[in-house]
Amino acid sequence: MQTPKKVGITGSGLVGSLLAIYLKRQGHDVDVYDRRPDIRNMEFSGRSINLAVSTRGWKALDHVGIREEIQALAIPMDKRAIHVQSKPVYYQYYGKEGEAIYSISRGVLNKKMIDLAEKEGANFIFESKVWDVSLSEAILYTGDSEKKDLEPQPYDLIFGADGAFSRIRHKMQRSSMFNYSQSFLKTGYKELSIPANAGNTHRMDKNSLHIWPRGEFMLIALPNLDGSFTCTLFMPYHGENSFEQLDTESKVQAFFKKYFDDVVKDMPDLITEFFKNPTSSLVTIKCEPWTSFDKVALIGDAAHAIVPFYGQGMNIGFEDITVLNQLIEQHGDDWKSIFEDYQTERKPNADAVAELSYRNFMEMSSKTADEMFLLRKKIEKRFSEKHPDKWMPLYSRVTFTTDPYSEALKQGDLQKAIMDDIMKMDSIEKLWDSERVEQRILQELNQS
Amino acid sequence: MQTPKKVGITGSGLVGSLLAIYLKRQGHDVDVYDRRPDIRNMEFSGRSINLAVSTRGWKALDHVGIREEIQALAIPMDKRAIHVQSKPVYYQYYGKEGEAIYSISRGVLNKKMIDLAEKEGANFIFESKVWDVSLSEAILYTGDSEKKDLEPQPYDLIFGADGAFSRIRHKMQRSSMFNYSQSFLKTGYKELSIPANAGNTHRMDKNSLHIWPRGEFMLIALPNLDGSFTCTLFMPYHGENSFEQLDTESKVQAFFKKYFDDVVKDMPDLITEFFKNPTSSLVTIKCEPWTSFDKVALIGDAAHAIVPFYGQGMNIGFEDITVLNQLIEQHGDDWKSIFEDYQTERKPNADAVAELSYRNFMEMSSKTADEMFLLRKKIEKRFSEKHPDKWMPLYSRVTFTTDPYSEALKQGDLQKAIMDDIMKMDSIEKLWDSERVEQRILQELNQS
Repeated sequence: MQTPKKVGITGSGLVGSLLAIYLKRQGHDVDVYDRRPDIRNMEFSGRSINLAVSTRGWKALDHVGIREEIQALAIPMDKRAIHVQSKPVYYQYYGKEGEAIYSISRGVLNKKMIDLAEKEGANFIFESKVWDVSLSEAILYTGDSEKKDLEPQPYDLIFGADGAFSRIRHKMQRSSMFNYSQSFLKTGYKELSIPANAGNTHRMDKNSLHIWPRGEFMLIALPNLDGSFTCTLFMPYHGENSFEQLDTESKVQAFFKKYFDDVVKDMPDLITEFFKNPTSSLVTIKCEPWTSFDKVALIGDAAHAIVPFYGQGMNIGFEDITVLNQLIEQHGDDWKSIFEDYQTERKPNADAVAELSYRNFMEMSSKTADEMFLLRKKIEKRFSEKHPDKWMPLYSRVTFTTDPYSEALKQGDLQKAIMDDIMKMDSIEKLWDSERVEQRILQELNQS
Repeated sequence: MQTPKKVGITGSGLVGSLLAIYLKRQGHDVDVYDRRPDIRNMEFSGRSINLAVSTRGWKALDHVGIREEIQALAIPMDKRAIHVQSKPVYYQYYGKEGEAIYSISRGVLNKKMIDLAEKEGANFIFESKVWDVSLSEAILYTGDSEKKDLEPQPYDLIFGADGAFSRIRHKMQRSSMFNYSQSFLKTGYKELSIPANAGNTHRMDKNSLHIWPRGEFMLIALPNLDGSFTCTLFMPYHGENSFEQLDTESKVQAFFKKYFDDVVKDMPDLITEFFKNPTSSLVTIKCEPWTSFDKVALIGDAAHAIVPFYGQGMNIGFEDITVLNQLIEQHGDDWKSIFEDYQTERKPNADAVAELSYRNFMEMSSKTADEMFLLRKKIEKRFSEKHPDKWMPLYSRVTFTTDPYSEALKQGDLQKAIMDDIMKMDSIEKLWDSERVEQRILQELNQS
């Protein structure tokens, strides 16, 4: 338990809510500001991608004893279901027996997290926009309009959990020596859906993350508890097969008929949703430093927005909280050290997961349709099962361990170099499960 | 001559003023806004690095017939004068006989450029801050305070020439799909000076850019017409030998005595200047797109701020204007095509010169003190003189040609790979001017 502080958090999203729970447990007074209305009174917005909770996320929930309540709202997915055109569905397991990622609706989870944080005693202030912040004094300024006089809200500590377009970070960016980048993909996304069967059963295997890889674009579907799937179409903004091109109902219908014929029959609201739901952008944001005057810190997407292709956005945000909490317990009231170590430890991991997530778009959209890629995964899996001490597949290390992301990236690059060599072996299609391939991998591992 | 447009330019710096001259020549109405007072009525600020005008800069001035007037204010520097500790000064020529870069004070040049632009009929509005801009309508909003009602200033076209911390770009950054990065060096800089001798003569060779390379830090000095030199100390903010460390007069005195003993006697105002002049930061800024709604474009530092170590900041800004003017003549009133081609042509070149400038800090501060590096330059120079059709040194291509910067970077990387091999040859110190070295370079060039 620490000397109680008055803490302001901007953003009542997943990271803001969980951080509020952790800080209440440490004995602090916690106010959480959000410019939006209480999500619990709203229909969720139709611009989301279902979340996949994995090991790092569960660890953070477990530590404050709320894992079970959340898990009851989630569906385990132990595999990818890959829908290549004119071929039967191919199932690729994510990890070992019993390992799975958990599909959960962002809206459902966020509502629950706010309930839990309120129960801990956190004070939520909705529809209150933070227009400015004094970083040196830890004062938030709220009010109806930037043009009018603003109300100062003084705190001992402030956490910016206000997402990719963080107002707190925006203020930091205007100070000198703040390194910052925002980089948009030329690909956007749109939420669609597959409703439940009558009787609330799922129309496809519910324990899979379904992918329709089509090269430059792809459709994915993640299961919901009510029998429906939340789908996301990822596609370039411009060019052939782009959001720009699909500007009439008949073009959308023809496009889905051509490329997603096996699923379009299960999407009765396709046309309505396609034109109602916004096309959202995908951005990677990096910055440094994450802290200011030992009083203000960024956390979650505000510090490191990433593209969603590794399913790690929420998981890394929750892990930020795990690490921050460990440092609070280690350093007590020494917030200077807490903030310094927090940034030193998290920044390289955030950079690593940004890189991994960016790369994974190619893997999901193109390579999962490629037989040589699937063979490569089979070889890796076989070797990993025989030599679990020598080889943990990159996906498993990222998803099913709490090893630092930076270490995962490093090991992943090493494994990639070895597998590039292996895949060049003559007749690898026939040899793939041979002693020779296994020995060659062992030999390269020894040399590396 | 084009259909006359009403054009607003933000920023009365070098690029803003020269652009005003070009646009007046094309027949447009031109207003130039600056939030600062008229520089012609001010003492210049003591936070500048002298400029080195080179071929690209001269070309842009020449085209509107003002080269001679400007050149009269500049001093040619045909070489580096390298002051290694406890060694005689070493002179390294920049190019061939007759090739030089031209030292000019930023303040002197800027005052002259504003005079010339006013003479062309451009309308300068000083002490008028642009708080906001409508990108889609090309309206600038000016006024005394952001809190009060702003005055709309409608234009047909707007150019943001408002430097590294551009307000126009800041507005663009808030729109979706705008890629942006700002990256600060951990090294800052401070302006110092060497006054003239009695009789306005220079205390050192006036046709040299003087460098005192000291590894992590360096001092440079560029000549002024009045016999003085403008010096710049580049040094890390923190750590050993840093601005942070030099916090007392005696520490500054001891530091200069230790590292710059041959020049400190010529710096009578050192202590006053060191504590009066600000420590300024060095930033690289990249963004994309540079244009918005075919009505607003960024130019100069606003589009591509770079670190000063290649002496190209002003030169690339002026070259932006040369290219823009060529496109205006090519496309006439088709501003959509002008803006599209402008960005397509300039962006890769801006990225290339950012990279070259960043790399050159190491060359100037460390490598110019390294004998093997100087030998490498001698080998390159010898080969280049014998085979001018086969090898143009990178520095020359950047500085003394108008070849695209992106091409210079590419050729430079190729040459570097070859020279890395050459420098590994046994006894290269003895062999350097031999037939064998020459043949080896020719052979590697043929293979590349």
